[in-house]
Amino acid sequence: VSPLRERELIERLRARLGPQPPHVIVGTGDDAAVLEPERGCVEVVSTDSLIEDVHFRRAWTPLDAVGTKAVATSLSDLAAMGARPRATLLSLALPDGFSITDFDALVGSFIDAARQARAPLVGGNVSRSPGPLVVDTTAIGAVRRRGVMTRGGGRPGCALYVTGRLGGAAAGLSLLTAGVDRGSLDADELDSVRRYERPEARLRTGWLVGRARAAAACVDLSDGLADGARQIAAASGTGVQIEAADVPLHPGARTVSSRLGLDPLRMALSGGEDYELLFAIGPRQHSRFRSALRRCPDVSVARVGVLTEEPALVLCHPGGATEPLPEGFGH
Amino acid sequence: VSPLRERELIERLRARLGPQPPHVIVGTGDDAAVLEPERGCVEVVSTDSLIEDVHFRRAWTPLDAVGTKAVATSLSDLAAMGARPRATLLSLALPDGFSITDFDALVGSFIDAARQARAPLVGGNVSRSPGPLVVDTTAIGAVRRRGVMTRGGGRPGCALYVTGRLGGAAAGLSLLTAGVDRGSLDADELDSVRRYERPEARLRTGWLVGRARAAAACVDLSDGLADGARQIAAASGTGVQIEAADVPLHPGARTVSSRLGLDPLRMALSGGEDYELLFAIGPRQHSRFRSALRRCPDVSVARVGVLTEEPALVLCHPGGATEPLPEGFGH
Repeated sequence: VSPLRERELIERLRARLGPQPPHVIVGTGDDAAVLEPERGCVEVVSTDSLIEDVHFRRAWTPLDAVGTKAVATSLSDLAAMGARPRATLLSLALPDGFSITDFDALVGSFIDAARQARAPLVGGNVSRSPGPLVVDTTAIGAVRRRGVMTRGGGRPGCALYVTGRLGGAAAGLSLLTAGVDRGSLDADELDSVRRYERPEARLRTGWLVGRARAAAACVDLSDGLADGARQIAAASGTGVQIEAADVPLHPGARTVSSRLGLDPLRMALSGGEDYELLFAIGPRQHSRFRSALRRCPDVSVARVGVLTEEPALVLCHPGGATEPLPEGFGH
Repeated sequence: VSPLRERELIERLRARLGPQPPHVIVGTGDDAAVLEPERGCVEVVSTDSLIEDVHFRRAWTPLDAVGTKAVATSLSDLAAMGARPRATLLSLALPDGFSITDFDALVGSFIDAARQARAPLVGGNVSRSPGPLVVDTTAIGAVRRRGVMTRGGGRPGCALYVTGRLGGAAAGLSLLTAGVDRGSLDADELDSVRRYERPEARLRTGWLVGRARAAAACVDLSDGLADGARQIAAASGTGVQIEAADVPLHPGARTVSSRLGLDPLRMALSGGEDYELLFAIGPRQHSRFRSALRRCPDVSVARVGVLTEEPALVLCHPGGATEPLPEGFGH
């Protein structure tokens, strides 16, 4: 992309932005964005990439889903810290032949999703890519210092709770990779495709639980429940036991599994991209946790296991059989 | 990159980080980084990418130069806003066959350059790339609100001043693309290669001039002087006149030009990646500007033109001939 063409694209993008909230002092179009910090809060910053043929395929995923997903995956990291989003930056590497229509679909959906999450696009850059489409997102948020949740605050005895139902995104991805016709999908399967293409960050739940100091640790599930549990255990210096029977399965994971001969539990444990939150709740935090959750009545939460003194990572089956917790999802 | 391998690489990176300054509350290894804001300051955020075969070639540029340059190019955006850097994030897409030695060279040089600029690496992510190496950097800084410099504050009558000498990076790139043996280069030519491979952001100059409110507008020269002047003029709603005879040429641009039969003025005007600063100085700001510059005795500054009421973008030659200002550099 020559500077002229880059500038045209950025002008095109700016025309879609609309008015900026007061905390954006300087938005897109300058050397950098300038933000008024939120009083009494610390800054939370995360960066994430979606790379064509690694994280998505253009044949399976419409570009407006890529834009929406880029926002959700970055904001999910903020949700896991208990932070509220305030701004996003977008760095694009566009392959040859990427059209203005493609650009509008990608950037328009990004801008809309970002605005809806109150994290307006405030800057970024556009380059040419000699290879895949690369969508790099930076998300900036704020949280009161005492509301910060890390991965490392868990202790033996903490109960693990997960939001939503798992394996939906993996089921959706399986349907897309298997080339199943969308017209033949039932409602649960369609929902699983939607979960894969347009995940939603659990922003309100993360923020409410963090603000109430109702969790000892939190992580978002980008690479499956097993990976999330492993992250909390590693950072907290504990082991973990997950109860297989308690893992909440997305209904699409069940029907897709029987359609394609897959294991729905594997989808939930090792399937990526559900972007639910996994909390470690200490013995004295349960009532605060329940109160916080009452304020998100549309979000279900399930207890799936416990952090242990013993450092092993264990999956427990009904009847008492155990096995090592499987690995996470690899893109 | 599978999550396991990504984690190994991130562990490897974290081992090189060393102790973090007190404003880094949560650094790498969690869902997001958490920073204590700087009292009385606004936040400045910028993102930039270096893409293999667009911004650099691995055959010409050692990977430790890529890491150093990634830091410099992002921090240069902060310098142009008058901000001081506080933290960086790094998002990497690694091609197949990228070795641990490559990783260490790239990431080690990034970490060292970032630490030296007081902008420690606090987060990021590592993905696989099915195409080129992609190095995406986010830089975070702070500045007192009245010290912010934008591109759009220029007025007709403002004088344009540029730091350093221009065309060095373009000369260095020309030597590398021409495949000239490094052993045959003289000192000026070697310096031009160094300018291309390891630019330095003008952080102290930008910050001092911003803090003194000594400039009406500022931009960093990533795509040449002509492009920078065009940016300030467009954002400020003015025209611009550049005096060809006053453009300070890097001595390497002269010798390389005669060696390769190129025009040194074109290198300065349209050659990219010098990462010098271009200031627009209002009639009442000159003495403050000179005072601020006295505190950076190693940085030369030259007056190169003026912003005009008339909207044209003009290059003036000695003797009075004029021509339209050329376009900027395209990667």
